[in-house]
Amino acid sequence: MKNISSQPFVLGIDVGATNIKFGLVDSRGKIVATSNLATASFLSHKRTLIQGLLQGCLALLKKHHLEEKDILGVGMGLPGLVDGIRGIVRFLPNIPGWKDVPLKEIMERRLRIPTFLDNDVNLITLAEWKFGAGKGIRNMVCLTLGTGVGSGLILDNRLYRGEGFAAGELGHVPLNEKGPVCNCGGRACLERYVGNRYLQKEAARIFKNKNLSLEDIDRLASQGDQRAKRFWAEAARHIGCGLVGVVNLLNPRRIVIGGGISNAYRHLFPAIRETLKKRAMRTPAQMVKIVRAKLGPRAGVLGAYVLVNHAHCG
Amino acid sequence: MKNISSQPFVLGIDVGATNIKFGLVDSRGKIVATSNLATASFLSHKRTLIQGLLQGCLALLKKHHLEEKDILGVGMGLPGLVDGIRGIVRFLPNIPGWKDVPLKEIMERRLRIPTFLDNDVNLITLAEWKFGAGKGIRNMVCLTLGTGVGSGLILDNRLYRGEGFAAGELGHVPLNEKGPVCNCGGRACLERYVGNRYLQKEAARIFKNKNLSLEDIDRLASQGDQRAKRFWAEAARHIGCGLVGVVNLLNPRRIVIGGGISNAYRHLFPAIRETLKKRAMRTPAQMVKIVRAKLGPRAGVLGAYVLVNHAHCG
Repeated sequence: MKNISSQPFVLGIDVGATNIKFGLVDSRGKIVATSNLATASFLSHKRTLIQGLLQGCLALLKKHHLEEKDILGVGMGLPGLVDGIRGIVRFLPNIPGWKDVPLKEIMERRLRIPTFLDNDVNLITLAEWKFGAGKGIRNMVCLTLGTGVGSGLILDNRLYRGEGFAAGELGHVPLNEKGPVCNCGGRACLERYVGNRYLQKEAARIFKNKNLSLEDIDRLASQGDQRAKRFWAEAARHIGCGLVGVVNLLNPRRIVIGGGISNAYRHLFPAIRETLKKRAMRTPAQMVKIVRAKLGPRAGVLGAYVLVNHAHCG
Repeated sequence: MKNISSQPFVLGIDVGATNIKFGLVDSRGKIVATSNLATASFLSHKRTLIQGLLQGCLALLKKHHLEEKDILGVGMGLPGLVDGIRGIVRFLPNIPGWKDVPLKEIMERRLRIPTFLDNDVNLITLAEWKFGAGKGIRNMVCLTLGTGVGSGLILDNRLYRGEGFAAGELGHVPLNEKGPVCNCGGRACLERYVGNRYLQKEAARIFKNKNLSLEDIDRLASQGDQRAKRFWAEAARHIGCGLVGVVNLLNPRRIVIGGGISNAYRHLFPAIRETLKKRAMRTPAQMVKIVRAKLGPRAGVLGAYVLVNHAHCG
């Protein structure tokens, strides 16, 4: 592999709630090798997870006969609040025990490779912007729809992280002044309407069937089932209402939508566009395009590549 | 004046619905002379307003014995959609006949002074950031509360204008999925709840008195009137709900609030802060500070100074 790929490589790590994905990306942005670990096996203690991260890196390097000097940097996306400047993981809501962990320092001490951290959705955003559905776009919002609903913001050709690395929580923009309490402590947040868990509850209620997956409902809608069609139209209206505020506030050129339920784009996107056309201000509504994310599960590792390269280019 | 002030000057113009303010700002950012024209006398035709703008400039220069070479640039804030790169006024919602007017070119041809245009709220934002309540702040939102509700965004130490110069419409972030139709065509926008016109209607309803001004209600609240206190608490809750989304999305360090009803800050700000504390996410809520704008009616002209100086410094 060393002979056919451009060196040096970036070692990208995408820490998710289910899997930890490792990937080697060559200097042209091509993923040339990957490996996976199940996150569940490392949840007993934060030290266990750190061991897993280190061993995953070392195993991948060893397998491909690579040494430190072959690696430009390690880039890592984590599902939570990450201080990318100091390299400290502030807080991971779904991985117990992680609070103010100086992960950059820990990784660098052991691997002797410069390491860069960021929030996982920020890495997806960087990847879609450089290689995917937001290529060449100056102002874009990347919305990820899953159990959590998150987003990343590219504003004036830069990833905007906010004062304390907490920007982009589009899932916690409230849709209503009154409404159900959200995990975050707020009320009526977008995630509280279209996070997978809530969509599944809603589906169970409508179809009186707890075993129907969101994929099933996507299929049903494609087959013309009226309840399934209404289910997606309702979800799209909620997403659209959340995006009206974002479009009026940020006037982006593009909104890239990814994550599990974005697979139901045939049923979601027309109604999202309709809501924006009807309710957002004319100038920004005319100018924004709603598109599907392109990179799927590769986005995290590719975003790590962009992160490391940006760090090197200043 | 030429002897005591630092040259060159910036000539700032703040075009408002009521007044057109002209101001000479010296190189240290001090306003050394001003003049005013009533906007109403120029509304018959866009050419009339352009004549007014030119004559206002020329009169101010003449009065202070200044020539073109004494002026670094003219900066102008306009209440609408302005393409600051091309120097074209796209649309002014409250001044009839203005559509795609190449105002920069027109002014420059006549005055022979480099001229820069921007939206009026953007200029207020630049002024508060450089000289006022947002001094030294990397990420801030400047909210202006009046007949219209607008905002400007300083993100990563730059004014963020959006893809088509339409960013910052915080007044048109919807507070609810269902609700009253707004002027902008949307529904349940923040402005539809706390724009002066709507607040006044609400006041007339509550107090069964059409002649009570918002200043009167501020005074009544200070005197302990319960209805007046509830009136402001309700307005503050709406503003707070709008800001929850902005705080979660942009994680700003500071929110600067100006415009007419911000004078009722004693009754508004505590309830806004309370709403943010209760409903925004913990990290961004802890980090944001809500403060009053400092510059009042001088903000537009001072913002013009910042705009012109930025243009010269790149």
